[in-house]
Amino acid sequence: MVDMIADYYEALPDQPRVSPDVQPGFLRGAVPPRAPEQPESFDAVMADVRDKLMPGVVHWQSPSFFAYFPSNYSFPAALADMWSSVLGMVGFSWAAGPVSTELEMAMMDWMADLCGLPQAFKCNGGGGPGGGVIQGTTSEAVVVALLAARARSLAGRPPADKLKLVAYSSDQAHSCFKKACMIVGIDHVRLLPASPQHDWALQPQALQAAIEADVAAGLIPCFVMATIGTTSSCAVDPVAQLAAAAAGSGAWFHVDAAYAGSAALLPEQRHHFCGLEAVDSYSFNPHKWLLTNFDCCCLWVADSAPLKEALSLTPVFLRAAGNSLDYKDWQIPLGRRFRSLKLYFLLRMYGAEFIRAYLRHHIALAAAFAQRVDADPRFELAAPQRFGLVCFRLRDVPREVNAALLAQLNAGGRLFLIHTELAGAYTLRLAVGSASTQLQHVTAAWEAVAAAADVVLEAHAETGQGKEGAKAVAGSAA
Amino acid sequence: MVDMIADYYEALPDQPRVSPDVQPGFLRGAVPPRAPEQPESFDAVMADVRDKLMPGVVHWQSPSFFAYFPSNYSFPAALADMWSSVLGMVGFSWAAGPVSTELEMAMMDWMADLCGLPQAFKCNGGGGPGGGVIQGTTSEAVVVALLAARARSLAGRPPADKLKLVAYSSDQAHSCFKKACMIVGIDHVRLLPASPQHDWALQPQALQAAIEADVAAGLIPCFVMATIGTTSSCAVDPVAQLAAAAAGSGAWFHVDAAYAGSAALLPEQRHHFCGLEAVDSYSFNPHKWLLTNFDCCCLWVADSAPLKEALSLTPVFLRAAGNSLDYKDWQIPLGRRFRSLKLYFLLRMYGAEFIRAYLRHHIALAAAFAQRVDADPRFELAAPQRFGLVCFRLRDVPREVNAALLAQLNAGGRLFLIHTELAGAYTLRLAVGSASTQLQHVTAAWEAVAAAADVVLEAHAETGQGKEGAKAVAGSAA
Repeated sequence: MVDMIADYYEALPDQPRVSPDVQPGFLRGAVPPRAPEQPESFDAVMADVRDKLMPGVVHWQSPSFFAYFPSNYSFPAALADMWSSVLGMVGFSWAAGPVSTELEMAMMDWMADLCGLPQAFKCNGGGGPGGGVIQGTTSEAVVVALLAARARSLAGRPPADKLKLVAYSSDQAHSCFKKACMIVGIDHVRLLPASPQHDWALQPQALQAAIEADVAAGLIPCFVMATIGTTSSCAVDPVAQLAAAAAGSGAWFHVDAAYAGSAALLPEQRHHFCGLEAVDSYSFNPHKWLLTNFDCCCLWVADSAPLKEALSLTPVFLRAAGNSLDYKDWQIPLGRRFRSLKLYFLLRMYGAEFIRAYLRHHIALAAAFAQRVDADPRFELAAPQRFGLVCFRLRDVPREVNAALLAQLNAGGRLFLIHTELAGAYTLRLAVGSASTQLQHVTAAWEAVAAAADVVLEAHAETGQGKEGAKAVAGSAA
Repeated sequence: MVDMIADYYEALPDQPRVSPDVQPGFLRGAVPPRAPEQPESFDAVMADVRDKLMPGVVHWQSPSFFAYFPSNYSFPAALADMWSSVLGMVGFSWAAGPVSTELEMAMMDWMADLCGLPQAFKCNGGGGPGGGVIQGTTSEAVVVALLAARARSLAGRPPADKLKLVAYSSDQAHSCFKKACMIVGIDHVRLLPASPQHDWALQPQALQAAIEADVAAGLIPCFVMATIGTTSSCAVDPVAQLAAAAAGSGAWFHVDAAYAGSAALLPEQRHHFCGLEAVDSYSFNPHKWLLTNFDCCCLWVADSAPLKEALSLTPVFLRAAGNSLDYKDWQIPLGRRFRSLKLYFLLRMYGAEFIRAYLRHHIALAAAFAQRVDADPRFELAAPQRFGLVCFRLRDVPREVNAALLAQLNAGGRLFLIHTELAGAYTLRLAVGSASTQLQHVTAAWEAVAAAADVVLEAHAETGQGKEGAKAVAGSAA
């Protein structure tokens, strides 16, 4: 298996396709309808993996994977995960896995310092009011933060007041915000519009006005979520100003930096992360861009009491105090893997200096791609390039032409990107961040984009819709 | 790493301690306060793992680990997990990982047939109303089922009716039931008493009476959860009769067989699983007793529509229809590992016949231990031995003596068990199920129990409390 992994990793850049050319149901005939009674050899299973399963794989680790956000794999984290697996230690409480709890506190403190986070977020051995915990995903982190918010908002109020709770975010926030509200049962959800004039960042005045209107209507502001690095365009909400706008409302303030949070390791990117001293909780995913195999989402809170109030079944007077904690009271599930081991192996075997260089490299590659877009008069940048993300499109064409451009690019299979919508405009996203991506892959991606543009623009011209027609269509769509 | 894993596994039976002798904070001086700037070697990291981390490990895979429920590790599942890691494919939608979605449907069907589950639970390639999904843990499966229940209960009702929803279970149900109600925001939670007269199984009359009382009070029955194999005593709720009692109430009926569900692979244990044709959802954890490394919880629903109503952000008319599905709409998180690969490797490399023999072996070992308890007049079985669990205690002694027995047993470190409370009585639990447990380990466990009983009973006699005094104390405690 180790050899096969090494072979796979080495052959990744030469995979004929990054995303597969298969249809729903492709596996149906290839897997027998029932489990076998008798054992089969590892070789037989791996042969089927190679022949039957691999044709349906999206190669997320390919250097030419530019879709979604990256989901990094690294050997240190993989080795740690192997060790975590063999221990099979389900550390829901301190007693069920002492080292799992203790190392998680230590790694969350390491990570807080690496990212320049407020000292209030640190675990300090479990003794402080704040602390950090590893969740599976940002979706879970947001649910947990929202549960803490709800507990704090409802303290001393009648249960029926839960019908009055309001949650606020930008309309650029990740869908997990709305899903968390559905799960927790928050009826009033405000997706405040962000606009291109402010680079898709939520404006404090908009938040303040919404809060005031809700308070005037007898509702209870419960939860505000700001985003550093939105999924669509890597917009950065002004955390400090938003927190000031929400101050006094009683709402819990969470900051989601799922993808971009890794950039906080870089001093020159820290200006995007101002204001965290004023927030209640903050989360980001090392499993995206920080070389930590899925799953690993770091969540910090400045005060863990409301979180435990929402998630602990242990009466307050029985909870472990002072110098220990039970992480089951910080999350939805009971069981949990020994995930901090991945951060321990990663940070020690690579060291912080290398990891910063790695992140800078990706940002520089994205900047190089953005320059190519900017230099080609047929294209426009749809948002400023930030972190590893470039949003771009053919200018002055109907949306169908940009959709055709993406289809043309992905059909070849040599690279994989997805699109987003920005103010109703079809926009392509190129997210640099696969661990093996180098300049040559980004250059090849640009060449593929330029060549595909030739094809779709020619087809567009041939349909009889000239430039004027296209402009008219684009104008009416806008 | 592979060598170290093999060495660890081989040395497991000879570990001097199953649970460690450490205190909170033991790791503080052993991990530097900050992450290193420069890389360190794998050997240096592994040396620290061995010297600093391993002393804080609970050896869940030890053959003498009898605490909680088992959390099995197997090489086929570990190999699959290594491959899943290197792919790093986050298959939240069909498109993001076609093979991840397709294989999960196939494996959930394999597992449904192996367990003799109703055909309505099968995915049938995504085409049916029902289907299966792999969750991380039972806690998540119960939240998901409860969300589906809430969506179905509230359909066509005003939002304020959520204040009237009621959830029912036995007081022997796992704590994740109550936690799920806290998360989803169900205010009315009925933990109906189960008693030793019925071997701790919830009685249908009790459920029916509770439902009728709530309906009469204007409340809305929303969710019933039955358990096959409770944590305390492996009690089996009578699913068919409970479902009949709840029929017509409109409540969603979920069955949690987290640990015992593996036993459904055995025809001779199937009588415990009667009545599943009448329920809405069913879940169990292959990551407990079925040789599948954590995490892997199988959840089936007979109708996925309310689940998607609760968890999908895609409008109904845009949802993938017919021959494909997006598993993000079946769970709380967006991201997900390629976990079905673990079941694929496990079932093929071991085969169903071997796995059934493995389960039977553990049940026989538990029966052997129960016989030893039963044959010793100092002891009593606190509940019938079922599956791999034996609940036992010293008879006619104050609870402190049984607590001392457990403390004495665990202090030596050669084995690890925990206790539970049954009708207020301190009860020891021996859960057989670690993959490497053999008769010799269970025999040694019994010998350790018998020897520890000698010690604590002698100490108890010396305190001056004779048998009569002990009986009086035990009587007043009951």
